[in-house]
Amino acid sequence: MKKHNFSAGPSILPQEVFAKAAQGVLDLDGSGLSVLEISHRSKEFVNIHHQAKTLVKEVLNVPDNYHILFLSGGASTQFFMTALNILGDDQKAVYLDTGSWSSKAIKEARRYGQIEVIGSSKDKNYTYIPKDYEIPSDASYLHLTSNNTIFGTQFQEFPDTDIPLVCDMSSDIFSRAVDVTKFGIIYAGAQKNMGPAGTTLVIVRDDLVGQSGRDIPTILDYKTHIDKDSMFNTPPVFPIYVSMLTLKWLKGIGGVSAAAERNQAKAETLYHEIERNSLFEGVVVPEDRSKMNATFVLKDDNHLDAFLGACAEAGIVGVKGHRSVGGFRASMYNAMELDSVTALVQVMQEFEAKQ
Amino acid sequence: MKKHNFSAGPSILPQEVFAKAAQGVLDLDGSGLSVLEISHRSKEFVNIHHQAKTLVKEVLNVPDNYHILFLSGGASTQFFMTALNILGDDQKAVYLDTGSWSSKAIKEARRYGQIEVIGSSKDKNYTYIPKDYEIPSDASYLHLTSNNTIFGTQFQEFPDTDIPLVCDMSSDIFSRAVDVTKFGIIYAGAQKNMGPAGTTLVIVRDDLVGQSGRDIPTILDYKTHIDKDSMFNTPPVFPIYVSMLTLKWLKGIGGVSAAAERNQAKAETLYHEIERNSLFEGVVVPEDRSKMNATFVLKDDNHLDAFLGACAEAGIVGVKGHRSVGGFRASMYNAMELDSVTALVQVMQEFEAKQ
Repeated sequence: MKKHNFSAGPSILPQEVFAKAAQGVLDLDGSGLSVLEISHRSKEFVNIHHQAKTLVKEVLNVPDNYHILFLSGGASTQFFMTALNILGDDQKAVYLDTGSWSSKAIKEARRYGQIEVIGSSKDKNYTYIPKDYEIPSDASYLHLTSNNTIFGTQFQEFPDTDIPLVCDMSSDIFSRAVDVTKFGIIYAGAQKNMGPAGTTLVIVRDDLVGQSGRDIPTILDYKTHIDKDSMFNTPPVFPIYVSMLTLKWLKGIGGVSAAAERNQAKAETLYHEIERNSLFEGVVVPEDRSKMNATFVLKDDNHLDAFLGACAEAGIVGVKGHRSVGGFRASMYNAMELDSVTALVQVMQEFEAKQ
Repeated sequence: MKKHNFSAGPSILPQEVFAKAAQGVLDLDGSGLSVLEISHRSKEFVNIHHQAKTLVKEVLNVPDNYHILFLSGGASTQFFMTALNILGDDQKAVYLDTGSWSSKAIKEARRYGQIEVIGSSKDKNYTYIPKDYEIPSDASYLHLTSNNTIFGTQFQEFPDTDIPLVCDMSSDIFSRAVDVTKFGIIYAGAQKNMGPAGTTLVIVRDDLVGQSGRDIPTILDYKTHIDKDSMFNTPPVFPIYVSMLTLKWLKGIGGVSAAAERNQAKAETLYHEIERNSLFEGVVVPEDRSKMNATFVLKDDNHLDAFLGACAEAGIVGVKGHRSVGGFRASMYNAMELDSVTALVQVMQEFEAKQ
């Protein structure tokens, strides 16, 4: 039976990417070698890596004064690595707290410079995006989490400011066009819209590198990876390979603007049903709803297991909500087709009809 | 044509592992989902992770007072993470310098505590393992690189001392039995004997954790990963999956003692030919030769390209030596079969006959 994979991450990737990746594991492009056994210095991998970088640049329209790095360690490593690299001891950075991941970024950055939280939606369990805040002009950067996977909120627009944005885009990168010039650093764990778990994309503006003036362990210094083109040490070859395949697929369907249209259609379909269906209600204020992760609950929580059972029968997996929100979360990343969302909507309608 | 993959890393893995891994990319154990799209919290991955950990424990006979972690960032991250975690500012650690990777470990550790290099083979371009050194009893640990991938040397026996060893075993872990109780920390990038690039095995003795007393970024603290069973953040799912498959294969062939016998047979076959063949000579002193990476040169360097050409014709790849040694390097990790080594020996013999 076809599975509809609504997991929050690691998550669905295009079926054609799975097919190509499996072939690469057996024999990479007729080389007689598996992609798992080739040297990261081989011409095959150098080419894969170059393609991945070029595709990121193309689909996000990244200007030439930015570096594109494929690192490891996840967004959780970038939480401190960003501040470590670009925030001096006597400098100030400002943060928006829109959920668990923002809070972790704030906690890790506090080791460096002065960290000020200028806006937070913690008062309402992160069900909205703060809008009423002042951005001090003497801050080195403003950090935000563009999409909050756990709570289901998303910045529909980015703050209008002259200071650079530093942004954790782990769960909505490549889902829409963004103006990269507003950002000092964009970072994203691969395992939502880019590829499988195991690599982290970092896009960093050239002039920020080395700005903290700190002595940094070599592998934590952006400059190391820039100078060595992400090959300072053995990179995560396979996760980068599959990311390249996924980016190629994305370009093939029309890039981020086409992805945004697909994502809009999926989100509208699901949120419409959440509003229409008498059994369910959304968690998040409508204007801040995420197009990637829809959070919703049953008005009567006693039906929870029954609804999850109905989902399982229809091949729908990964819709159980995060423990800090409860209820359900349907993640609809780039690779998800509309028919998976309509399958979920149908289960919701049948479930309502049975009550 | 069958390829004989002598790459230094990422490197050969068992053919049956490639077949199983490719199947997992298409459909993991009949789940209807790819291993690339499952949640790291799913029962499927929790089981994979548990199996991988259990297999490491079994094949290396790891005592219960050690933690087994699957991290990311490679050995290059462990170069500073070991000292950061276990070496206090007022403490001393001693290091053996046996090549490029040791030197890097020393450089990174110098940020913490007092680092003393008690032995080095740099004077002879790292062609031997230092044996004549004193280990001060007040050192917190002795760091060494068990196998030097670039230069082709290997500790045949580990230093006899009461202080814990901290060891980079990236290129010979699982190739032979080791007495884990002598070690405080063993770390290894996966991409030689354990799996594909993208995860790093760390085995750490419980009492050492937190010993430095430092405030450490959360993701760089061993305690974080111990408390969360390597699931503090999204782990590199696929590299851990393939590592599990490889460890299962290793257990199936008889574990590390069987691997050691295979590796001994391969190394004897190749080193015998290097000595016998009038055109070649070994780089390393015989008693310190690595069973994983054999380094050798042509007495007449003018034949270099011709010999590489003859190798390529026979499907032999990855034998070009590292630039800091020159000549050739044949890496014969666990998964390599003896017939690949005999294929190389045959090319060497035919090449000699033609001169």
